[in-house]
Amino acid sequence: MHSLPSQAIRPLSLSSSSSFSSSSSLYLRFISSTFPVSPYFNPQSPVFTAISRRLRRSTIRSCSSITAKPSSEIRRTRPKDEPDSKLRALRDLFSKPNIGIDAYVIPSQDAHQSEFIAECYMRRAYISGFTGSAGTAVVTKDKAALWTDGRYFLQAEKQLNSSWTLMRAGNHGVPTPSEWVADILAPGGVVGIDPFLFSADAAEDLKETISRKNHKLVYLYDYNLVDEIWKESRPNPPKGPIRVHDLRYGGLDVASKLASLRSELGEAGSSAIIISMLDEIAWLLNLRGNDVPNSPVMYAYLLVEIDGAKLFVDNCKVAPEVMDHLKTAGIELRPYDSIISEIENLADKGANLWLDTSSINAAIANAYRSACDKYFIRLGNKRKGKGKTSETSNSQVGPTGVYKSSPISMAKAIKNHAELEGMRNSHLRDAAALAQFWLWLEQEILNGVKLTEVEVADKLLEFRKKQDGFVDTSFDTISASGANGAIIHYKPEPGDCSVVDANKLFLLDSGAQYVDGTTDITRTVHFGEPTTHQKECFTRVLQGHIALDQAVFPQHTPGFVLDAFARSSLWKVGLDYRHGTGHGVGAALNVHEGPQSISFRFGNMTGLQNGMIVSNEPGYYEDYSFGIRIENLLIVRDADTPNHFGGIGYLGFEKLTFVPIQTKLVDITLLSVAEVNWLNDYHSQVWEKVSPLLEGSARQWLWNNTRPLAKT
Amino acid sequence: MHSLPSQAIRPLSLSSSSSFSSSSSLYLRFISSTFPVSPYFNPQSPVFTAISRRLRRSTIRSCSSITAKPSSEIRRTRPKDEPDSKLRALRDLFSKPNIGIDAYVIPSQDAHQSEFIAECYMRRAYISGFTGSAGTAVVTKDKAALWTDGRYFLQAEKQLNSSWTLMRAGNHGVPTPSEWVADILAPGGVVGIDPFLFSADAAEDLKETISRKNHKLVYLYDYNLVDEIWKESRPNPPKGPIRVHDLRYGGLDVASKLASLRSELGEAGSSAIIISMLDEIAWLLNLRGNDVPNSPVMYAYLLVEIDGAKLFVDNCKVAPEVMDHLKTAGIELRPYDSIISEIENLADKGANLWLDTSSINAAIANAYRSACDKYFIRLGNKRKGKGKTSETSNSQVGPTGVYKSSPISMAKAIKNHAELEGMRNSHLRDAAALAQFWLWLEQEILNGVKLTEVEVADKLLEFRKKQDGFVDTSFDTISASGANGAIIHYKPEPGDCSVVDANKLFLLDSGAQYVDGTTDITRTVHFGEPTTHQKECFTRVLQGHIALDQAVFPQHTPGFVLDAFARSSLWKVGLDYRHGTGHGVGAALNVHEGPQSISFRFGNMTGLQNGMIVSNEPGYYEDYSFGIRIENLLIVRDADTPNHFGGIGYLGFEKLTFVPIQTKLVDITLLSVAEVNWLNDYHSQVWEKVSPLLEGSARQWLWNNTRPLAKT
Repeated sequence: MHSLPSQAIRPLSLSSSSSFSSSSSLYLRFISSTFPVSPYFNPQSPVFTAISRRLRRSTIRSCSSITAKPSSEIRRTRPKDEPDSKLRALRDLFSKPNIGIDAYVIPSQDAHQSEFIAECYMRRAYISGFTGSAGTAVVTKDKAALWTDGRYFLQAEKQLNSSWTLMRAGNHGVPTPSEWVADILAPGGVVGIDPFLFSADAAEDLKETISRKNHKLVYLYDYNLVDEIWKESRPNPPKGPIRVHDLRYGGLDVASKLASLRSELGEAGSSAIIISMLDEIAWLLNLRGNDVPNSPVMYAYLLVEIDGAKLFVDNCKVAPEVMDHLKTAGIELRPYDSIISEIENLADKGANLWLDTSSINAAIANAYRSACDKYFIRLGNKRKGKGKTSETSNSQVGPTGVYKSSPISMAKAIKNHAELEGMRNSHLRDAAALAQFWLWLEQEILNGVKLTEVEVADKLLEFRKKQDGFVDTSFDTISASGANGAIIHYKPEPGDCSVVDANKLFLLDSGAQYVDGTTDITRTVHFGEPTTHQKECFTRVLQGHIALDQAVFPQHTPGFVLDAFARSSLWKVGLDYRHGTGHGVGAALNVHEGPQSISFRFGNMTGLQNGMIVSNEPGYYEDYSFGIRIENLLIVRDADTPNHFGGIGYLGFEKLTFVPIQTKLVDITLLSVAEVNWLNDYHSQVWEKVSPLLEGSARQWLWNNTRPLAKT
Repeated sequence: MHSLPSQAIRPLSLSSSSSFSSSSSLYLRFISSTFPVSPYFNPQSPVFTAISRRLRRSTIRSCSSITAKPSSEIRRTRPKDEPDSKLRALRDLFSKPNIGIDAYVIPSQDAHQSEFIAECYMRRAYISGFTGSAGTAVVTKDKAALWTDGRYFLQAEKQLNSSWTLMRAGNHGVPTPSEWVADILAPGGVVGIDPFLFSADAAEDLKETISRKNHKLVYLYDYNLVDEIWKESRPNPPKGPIRVHDLRYGGLDVASKLASLRSELGEAGSSAIIISMLDEIAWLLNLRGNDVPNSPVMYAYLLVEIDGAKLFVDNCKVAPEVMDHLKTAGIELRPYDSIISEIENLADKGANLWLDTSSINAAIANAYRSACDKYFIRLGNKRKGKGKTSETSNSQVGPTGVYKSSPISMAKAIKNHAELEGMRNSHLRDAAALAQFWLWLEQEILNGVKLTEVEVADKLLEFRKKQDGFVDTSFDTISASGANGAIIHYKPEPGDCSVVDANKLFLLDSGAQYVDGTTDITRTVHFGEPTTHQKECFTRVLQGHIALDQAVFPQHTPGFVLDAFARSSLWKVGLDYRHGTGHGVGAALNVHEGPQSISFRFGNMTGLQNGMIVSNEPGYYEDYSFGIRIENLLIVRDADTPNHFGGIGYLGFEKLTFVPIQTKLVDITLLSVAEVNWLNDYHSQVWEKVSPLLEGSARQWLWNNTRPLAKT
């Protein structure tokens, strides 16, 4: 249950702002990071149009991981034909007083558009039984449908009972959830949503689509209907303790960050900003949380005004040390659930609130706009009373929303010196753990030990846990043997995964959260004899990796301009991969962040800038056979070019990741001299940087795996 | 004077279609093919937003050539302070009955959005005295202003007298012509235009901008005011004879082309299409004309209906042979000036007309819409009389405009077998002429003969004229010695050009029209000893040229994805060039055509397809010093890749141009083995293909200039 005890249904705002109807709905239309045929075939396709302004889910593993630790409650599958008691209970609520809806839309999101969410917010999984990360459920009085994309068709078929219809999003002729519900309801239908679970933009899209068929959208503020039937079995909201992110790693104190933000507020003509993205709050306040797997964030909202700031958070998470830290920065605490009433107060006192409608949920945005409307109605009445109506049109008094992208996103993306140092250091420790891990795995395989993909991933975690400052994984490890490697978002599950086959390619994509940095690395290896074809594919992926790594380009070049470099060698022989090449990475924060990306999707015009971090992860996947991916993280750095044509700076990359690339898989005859030199130089750096952190056989393993290749 | 004798001012259409307000105005905002700072710096800049849907003026020399043979009348410059009698005469017309305007906008265009236009249509040059190819003049009752872009600032300063204000388009704070006239007029101003000289989209943009300041736009159909004062001295409209384009070269007969077009008309729900782009008419009818320099086209409109077609053309250009050709295809002749009344007839008879508002002029589009409005008013009145008004809203009877891009553009861009063969053959003859030319030039320079840039260009024309099937140049030759090479749109003028300096780089960009094909080639050479820096720059341009030439990519990849390949080597040392890398080329037609392009401008999403032709012309330019460009034409061809990932075809390029690249300028130490092999292989093909067309010393020259380089 959220705030507002008095009134269950809140009318949508009277005014309508054009900035609310702009972007496509990320969550209703499903962004898949794969494309159906050619990435260039149909620029009008949803793949091209449904690009989030914020690109939360970029590149690989986009939305693959919220099933991290699903509760047994969610997991339980029902016999196919048992009447669905959850659906019945949900539908019973439709006709309750103050509700009165004909359909309820249940997305996968929490209230903060998070990639990894707490179990208690996995409502779509609870109601439908489908535990995949991406999906939207729509329940009407007599129908229940679940949308998911191609990655999850098989899983959804298994998990959904007969009361549910699986809607295969992306398949020809399959409508979106909004289109479907608009078509299926009798005219004048009422569609309900929990407005906390939709971005303002997504809710506006839904409203528009259904209004074309004369249906109405209502925001159910007080009750999440799924929570109402979930009841006691619903997990509690997370209460992990918050910690202060050391200034050694954060680099910039909270006061300085707030001062910059406030200066931006002034320039934009706003007096306050509401921030709901959890990583933005963590970054801005130099705090780290413990509420969700993989991302060191805490559930909270942050309201920054010119002369103060309020953090809306469950105060049981706030230890005295954190309280002091916040006080020093002039930040007051408020209950997490009081956000809506505070937003209304803001409007009442005439504040111009900055809202990024692509991330701020519809509950907040609508509460502000409704309160603004009320303000002006009051004002109008008062003025009318005084006979001054003619003046109102000209004078711009009273609260006005400033609808712009969050300024935190870019500030956070451009890392400062301390953040970069933390990233460098944590990557070396991570590399040491990986060297120990690979040595162990090779020996086990050599000794004929049968290890499952999950056992291998668990062992990797053990090695990482021994490293200083280890906090968590940064996403669910993709440990994939043979054909599993071709499933781009593969997640091995205990009891339902393969043994790592010594005679197949093994793809390992993993990462960790450390106190000082976040890692994300993919290596593909073969324990036996790779085929000629596998070597060619690996070598072409490597050539793409090298081409991007070595690119130099004018400042502010959008990432998609560089994407083709990573594909060029594969294209020469008619090969390609169906995902982007790079995503942004947080510094001891989310492993996927915006606003930049390197992708064949041309919608992201964010220019690359000095200090950003991106992944470089081309791949190649052969269905039912194998997958190859080579991923390093890179810092975007000023390139020391001898010229500066156009009077501008040029950029290049500095590598963060220092782990050997298996040379056994390289067909050296395909490489140019420059490419061989790149590989040898990289391995020489790996040795130089990582060997001091290793000893004994792991050090020997690193030595063996960093020896130069000679181009004959 | 155009058609319609009765009524000078025609009211704008009553209805307003959203499709008229979409695209940016190509001609009022000036597309320059250069960019001010970084191509990626500001995606909101006009460089990014003002991309024409049709990309007429792509890449190099965009609009540089309409001064081809300016009349002495246009050329004459006036003493600076002489009162401007033309302006006075023009302003006198403002208050005439049936005119009544406060400002008149005079663009550079003819009625067909042509790149090269006939002298009699060079009204902006006549009225302003400024003869550059790009510019817009706006004359009010007391002000006269001329907009042009950075290429022409110096020239405009020289040519404009003191009555004119030069508006430096693209400079900070300089308004567009529409903004300026909207600001400068007193409220309720009336702006007049000749509606034949604006695309419907451009006119709509102008109307929108000035209406924000409460001004009105009127279309002066009957009189072009500049023509009224130009009077007797105005050159006659061209009357060059039309010829039939041989089926050997055209490949597809008119009946087949019309059948395809009519099938598209049906699919689009239209019953007729009006075509005004001169190259589209020439292509569709297998005709070639002689009305403008460089492009083998004739002034005409073409109306294709389901059951007939009408060519609006001055019939003195139509010889009996051409008449027979047209009759065979079922095409009737109509006077050029009767287009508007025919369009009105079409609406009267209820035809659904397909109009591409990015190319169709506002006169035609508005005439059709006005006639449609009248049709429905009549219909409404009639029905009202019969008491049947309630039915009108539902029934879709009567004429309706179908506002879509021209289907001819893509059909023309994808060349058939005969067109490709013609292009291949004409390129070999062109290469033979160039070999003879380069031999001659090298000998002259060696002998110390002083030759101007124009003399060199003239001599090249002589060699080309001797080739079978030569028709014309395909654009004005850019013959540029030393620093002139850095002026991307340089056009040497007799009496005002440089001597070709034996000790400087010489850039030669030229092309020809043959009966079977169109050529466009740039080579850069040094007759003495290039500097190390020049060699490095040349080599990096060559590496870019090779990288694009060798690219393989999925079908339907938009050209801009490949653009970075051509810049990559320059970027590595902080260099770049401020123009696109490739434009489409017609087959024995316009040297610049759409819809595809290869450019850093991301707006053109047209996918490349088998059979298209593009130029490959990276460059590097150092202001006040030198310019380098290496340009070949390429055919987009299916690549015979061993794989077809995604179940799609992959594309590559086949070279059309076979002329040696000067190896003296190559720093071989910068080249990879693969790049050296490319160069040697290219030269071996040049020898093989072109040597049979040469004898004697020219053959020897070719031999000397196609010897392989060895990578030491």
